Amino acid sequence: MKFVTVKDSTGSVAGLLDDTGTKVLLINAALEKMEGKSDLPAALKECIALGDKFIDKVHSLTGWLSSNPDRQELFRPLDSVKLEAPIPRPDKNIFCVGKNYAEHAIEMGSKEDIPEHIMVFTKSPTTVIGPDAMVLNHKNITAELDYEGELAVVIGKKGRAIPKEEALEYVFGYTIINDVTARDLQSRHKQFFIGKSLDATCPMGPWIVHSSAIENPNKLDIQTKVNEEVRQNSNTENFIFPIEEIISVLSNGMTLEAGDIIATGTPAGVGKGFKPPRFLQPGDKVEITVEEIGTLTNTIED
Amino acid sequence: MKFVTVKDSTGSVAGLLDDTGTKVLLINAALEKMEGKSDLPAALKECIALGDKFIDKVHSLTGWLSSNPDRQELFRPLDSVKLEAPIPRPDKNIFCVGKNYAEHAIEMGSKEDIPEHIMVFTKSPTTVIGPDAMVLNHKNITAELDYEGELAVVIGKKGRAIPKEEALEYVFGYTIINDVTARDLQSRHKQFFIGKSLDATCPMGPWIVHSSAIENPNKLDIQTKVNEEVRQNSNTENFIFPIEEIISVLSNGMTLEAGDIIATGTPAGVGKGFKPPRFLQPGDKVEITVEEIGTLTNTIED
Repeated sequence: MKFVTVKDSTGSVAGLLDDTGTKVLLINAALEKMEGKSDLPAALKECIALGDKFIDKVHSLTGWLSSNPDRQELFRPLDSVKLEAPIPRPDKNIFCVGKNYAEHAIEMGSKEDIPEHIMVFTKSPTTVIGPDAMVLNHKNITAELDYEGELAVVIGKKGRAIPKEEALEYVFGYTIINDVTARDLQSRHKQFFIGKSLDATCPMGPWIVHSSAIENPNKLDIQTKVNEEVRQNSNTENFIFPIEEIISVLSNGMTLEAGDIIATGTPAGVGKGFKPPRFLQPGDKVEITVEEIGTLTNTIED
Repeated sequence: MKFVTVKDSTGSVAGLLDDTGTKVLLINAALEKMEGKSDLPAALKECIALGDKFIDKVHSLTGWLSSNPDRQELFRPLDSVKLEAPIPRPDKNIFCVGKNYAEHAIEMGSKEDIPEHIMVFTKSPTTVIGPDAMVLNHKNITAELDYEGELAVVIGKKGRAIPKEEALEYVFGYTIINDVTARDLQSRHKQFFIGKSLDATCPMGPWIVHSSAIENPNKLDIQTKVNEEVRQNSNTENFIFPIEEIISVLSNGMTLEAGDIIATGTPAGVGKGFKPPRFLQPGDKVEITVEEIGTLTNTIED
């Protein structure tokens, strides 16, 4: 199951991508057809917070649709709707794991930079934009805008001190994030936050793949292209800290909540890693593909 | 004007402290008496987002009350209500300026640690607790819990690229924050976030003083006591980066929004600065007093 957020005349509403990946079902509108009413909230973020109740409802909906083939009119062509980030406005900053691939830590400095302990910084909720939306270039304040393709985890239920063994039970699903970074600001201000939190520098999507559809999130190919050229090409099996450990460490003294988003770190091949560096330029197109999820495409403001 | 959030039978509602500092007016309940209804939202965070409309409403309310002395029954004794943090659940992480007093930067390392550029990290919204609430001691994961008394700024309206000269126009008011920190986690995880974001480690309050009542926020005495002993004693005139500059730099490429909270940094005298260090112990009482604002008192879980 792939969950999307669609910008509708009524606001941002939860949708479901069909199996062909070409059509979208607006969940609430379809439930109203099925049951005469819907008691689900409109926004995907709030649906996620309902836990199993939401998934059960979606299952009964898809069951009803498959036994009522005349209801195909409820699906809209994907290219006729506007997708937003699956969670367009998170309830807190996005958690980001820094230097979670050894080769990336080395390209950013040296072997000394490979972390012994998980390093976490955050991006403000005001950074989030959807698939195909424009990344602001902020050219008056940075000359070093860089891409970072990342697998992101969406938390499905509240928990603290979550043991590694149970960590994946707390995951609602997986999406893709481009942790766009102003390298000059990142190094000038020491703590990463400022260089990571410029407006419209966190493309997210195009959808959240439900955890039930991903056998092993720690073994997924991840690739980033800039203007069709492959820049990052790795697999999440190269994580220094696998997802179970990230969730466990992060929740050790801090409650994780449904709808929380954790970007798991970026592989080698960022612009800053090249000699000379190859930072993003106005008009560049960045595509991040994660196996079993899809491709997140965004262009840089011209 | 001092704005509080009161935990009421209906939830968390906005209140106003009276001039004597001993009584609280529940704003919505009083407006209903005055006008037969109230069109203000219940929560202080949402009232702040209304901007001048909120302040105008409060002015008309206080005018009505002073010309109707028989309405004194609308005030409740302060000690009969439960205050929460003025913004119990911010819509994003709390922005925190690191090392904004030179003496504190030195006690944490050396003169080399005095920042040339503003350093910003964040605390998760799940850290926030109110005045007199208990700070969790997290003794199973940290042996180095430390206090940091800070003046905090509450943003009143949305803005990006705010010039220094206009920065204070974007401030709704000022409050106090104890940026409780697990020093061992802070240094182990490099980026400050994890050591700064344990549950219930951000006491805030006791109220927000409206900006109109503070002549110069960059010249306020600030003092922290632990068990009656003065540990931090400074003045915000010792800021390396004054509030105007913090707002200007932070908003340079990132939109600030009404209800955003910026902790401005802590003076010298934190537990880690002593030789040997004097970290917080279960049962300790921490009181932070900022001139013209008041005193925020919290105890550490026993």
